Amino acid sequence: MPTNYQKLTLKLEEISRLGGIMGILHWDQEVIMPSGAAESRAKQMGALAGIIHEKSTDPEIGSLLEKISQENSFNSFEECNINEARRQYELETKLPKNLVMELAELSSKGHQIWVKARSENRFSDFVPVLTQLIELKKRWAEYVFPKLKAYDANIDIYERGTTMSDITPVFETLKKELIPLIRDIQLSDYNPESSFLKGKFSVAKQEELGRRISEEMGFAFNCGRMDVSVHPFCGGSHPTDVRITTRYRNDNFIESLYAVIHETGHGLYEQGRMKEGRDLPASEALTMGIHESQSLFWERMIAQSLAFCNSYLPLIKETFPKNFRDVSAEQLYEAVNTSEASYIRVEADEVTYPMHVILRYEIEKGLFDDSIEINSLPELWNSKMKEYLGIEPPNDTLGVLQDTHWSGAAFGYFPSYTLGAIYASQFYQTLLADKPQLEKIIESGNLAIIREWLKQKIHKKGRLLSVPDLVKEVTGEGLNPTVFLKYLKQKYRKIYRLN
Amino acid sequence: MPTNYQKLTLKLEEISRLGGIMGILHWDQEVIMPSGAAESRAKQMGALAGIIHEKSTDPEIGSLLEKISQENSFNSFEECNINEARRQYELETKLPKNLVMELAELSSKGHQIWVKARSENRFSDFVPVLTQLIELKKRWAEYVFPKLKAYDANIDIYERGTTMSDITPVFETLKKELIPLIRDIQLSDYNPESSFLKGKFSVAKQEELGRRISEEMGFAFNCGRMDVSVHPFCGGSHPTDVRITTRYRNDNFIESLYAVIHETGHGLYEQGRMKEGRDLPASEALTMGIHESQSLFWERMIAQSLAFCNSYLPLIKETFPKNFRDVSAEQLYEAVNTSEASYIRVEADEVTYPMHVILRYEIEKGLFDDSIEINSLPELWNSKMKEYLGIEPPNDTLGVLQDTHWSGAAFGYFPSYTLGAIYASQFYQTLLADKPQLEKIIESGNLAIIREWLKQKIHKKGRLLSVPDLVKEVTGEGLNPTVFLKYLKQKYRKIYRLN
Repeated sequence: MPTNYQKLTLKLEEISRLGGIMGILHWDQEVIMPSGAAESRAKQMGALAGIIHEKSTDPEIGSLLEKISQENSFNSFEECNINEARRQYELETKLPKNLVMELAELSSKGHQIWVKARSENRFSDFVPVLTQLIELKKRWAEYVFPKLKAYDANIDIYERGTTMSDITPVFETLKKELIPLIRDIQLSDYNPESSFLKGKFSVAKQEELGRRISEEMGFAFNCGRMDVSVHPFCGGSHPTDVRITTRYRNDNFIESLYAVIHETGHGLYEQGRMKEGRDLPASEALTMGIHESQSLFWERMIAQSLAFCNSYLPLIKETFPKNFRDVSAEQLYEAVNTSEASYIRVEADEVTYPMHVILRYEIEKGLFDDSIEINSLPELWNSKMKEYLGIEPPNDTLGVLQDTHWSGAAFGYFPSYTLGAIYASQFYQTLLADKPQLEKIIESGNLAIIREWLKQKIHKKGRLLSVPDLVKEVTGEGLNPTVFLKYLKQKYRKIYRLN
Repeated sequence: MPTNYQKLTLKLEEISRLGGIMGILHWDQEVIMPSGAAESRAKQMGALAGIIHEKSTDPEIGSLLEKISQENSFNSFEECNINEARRQYELETKLPKNLVMELAELSSKGHQIWVKARSENRFSDFVPVLTQLIELKKRWAEYVFPKLKAYDANIDIYERGTTMSDITPVFETLKKELIPLIRDIQLSDYNPESSFLKGKFSVAKQEELGRRISEEMGFAFNCGRMDVSVHPFCGGSHPTDVRITTRYRNDNFIESLYAVIHETGHGLYEQGRMKEGRDLPASEALTMGIHESQSLFWERMIAQSLAFCNSYLPLIKETFPKNFRDVSAEQLYEAVNTSEASYIRVEADEVTYPMHVILRYEIEKGLFDDSIEINSLPELWNSKMKEYLGIEPPNDTLGVLQDTHWSGAAFGYFPSYTLGAIYASQFYQTLLADKPQLEKIIESGNLAIIREWLKQKIHKKGRLLSVPDLVKEVTGEGLNPTVFLKYLKQKYRKIYRLN
């Protein structure tokens, strides 16, 4: 007779496999699906989502969890699966069906309204649906996490265990230090030369280069793929089927290459998951913030370092001999680390990016505690942009309407980006303490050592630890913006000759 | 309140969409999946198959069908959906669960044993599992179609409504005429020149050529794709997402091109399905035989015709100027219509192919009515090969062990190939009577007219008519081997100068 725990794992494995199938449908849709199939694919994904919901709310799971709660002597892996199952089951079953349906409908409608409002630069058209979405997500929060404040409940979906009381002081510290740094950079007379990054770059050669670097980072192509999509992402169906994408431009290869490196960082997290119980939640990636810490670790801490530029400039020269003939590693390093305030978050560099996030965080926080009026958002947005980055968007399309998140009711997501950046710098600092020869390692191109360290310390840990416990175990301390700030200040004061 | 019929269609649409998802998983596995994902993909497909089975055997479907059987005034489309639902529901629910599981397990095991037995040329290793599979499929037949003979029940899965009493006399007629034709061809002094089909052909150019011809046949690439797989096939997830594949060799482009044309024929059937109710069974392709009639129609009746060679030789010359400089349309026509007896069914030409099918049909028939002993198969196979094709395989790997079908319990499938070939010739004859200028139409490359005719006459009909009724409606008569034989004899007696 199987135990209650074994019965539970069978159900969890089934749900996980159906989730993997959804991953393939999504990847296929973004990468390879014929355009005429949009409608049929939406229906297929709807059918599968319905089944996943059915399976996730199967009362049998509830009753198994009930029985299991009377049992004991589970090991930490089992314990984790039980807790994950309970969290997911409660999230799915605590909501009244009509709220689920209202949210689904309004998000879908909201997306269309947002697309139109953004293209027509009419924030007022977006106001009614945004108002409703916030109302719904407040009600939603009361059902799913009644003990949390409404905005904390929203954050918890992406960054469980982290609340405003953790984030606000960290973001205040960042503001205090970054606003002056950004202003200093803007006032600096020095601007890195980066004209050699422009030119003509064959897509085939870009792809070859990206594939080579991804492989040297440790991406296993026998358990993954690299393709092209409109927006780069990391998807797939399983740790043995991890699919990263990038996009190519003829006149710029750096964007594509760093997208490959970023997505490879995500991909290595998935491929590095523990070998046992891969269809169970305990083995899964921990949070959005930790996932982002992995992609940013590789993109920024490693690939934007001088050591990396030293290591890979010869290969880049070999790939694009004409463009890079007279370029030194220092020049490449400075060029890929140019910092400039810009309107659009997704185009921001590592110094200005946090300000985009903090701005959104403060607005979301205010919307959920009713201290901010929705109608005032464009004005508020622009004044915060002015204050934080010294620039003011000429219209709402380049301002408050730029991101898709709100139209899909994804409030509380933005902080993960910057939490990820902070964790990445903390992990790097720890790795450096572990391996003082780290720069030499990077210069020698022996990236496998780095990947293995991340795998042992983070990827293999799955969800066995909470984020604070994991960060503590790896770095010896909790979320700490100091390391991040020190890294940014040292690096950019030097690049911009600010001393 | 939705009617019982509407409730039923919701369930059928869900099942159809899940089936579409299975199509994508299968396509992905064959075309694009990283090799390391084999195990996880098998589990995902297993999970989805389980859900499709669950949904197909939902007692609610049974009770809706029961209620609907008391109602009336359904139109023919609705009637068809109800009948299809009933057939499928009964097929899925009539079987005891342990028989389903035994069959699934044994088929999976059987495949592995067959792979090994074939590679080691040891038929005796395959005997025990083949014996068990036939036993199981006899028991299976008693449950699902108790009124049919066991082999007829197996045929019914692929070619519903057609039984041995239809097939046997047709195959006897074919034997009587084809065996002498094959012998005459073998004895002919004339052999078409085909050395120009060998050479060096760039894969990129082959792909361009195949894509162009597929498009001119009417394949809509906005609702489909063309890719590469080990074995060419037509798959996908929906009439708006039809995916054909081919494979390329550097030294032969004809094989690949005709695979494209063949699979495009299948693809056009799917893309040509009625616009309404595309997620309901009434809109689906009718049978394997009718599907094959569409691929063979294009591959043989159209693309192996002199008119087609006339039409496309200039494009082929443009694509491969060196190889085809001195080749005439007549030479190309004769070269692509070379007939030669061979051991392997899948490599056979249109004259010898039916004998491969008839041989298997006679053996399967004998295995199911116990007139043939499994142990005698290798000997029987070889003697039939000698009698029908004048050649004897040197070993069982090239003989009785060559096909995968039996190892997966797919008995009754083979006849569809030749029924398809016969229907293709009957459809062509009717089209010719409809459009006496047909050859001119082909020569002018105006293939859209042909596709439109097939679409109106066959593709759009879905399952509204039975095979005999459809064939009757299109051609004015039933399954008739005379047209097929006349076509083969006229064509090949002329090519091989047999008059």
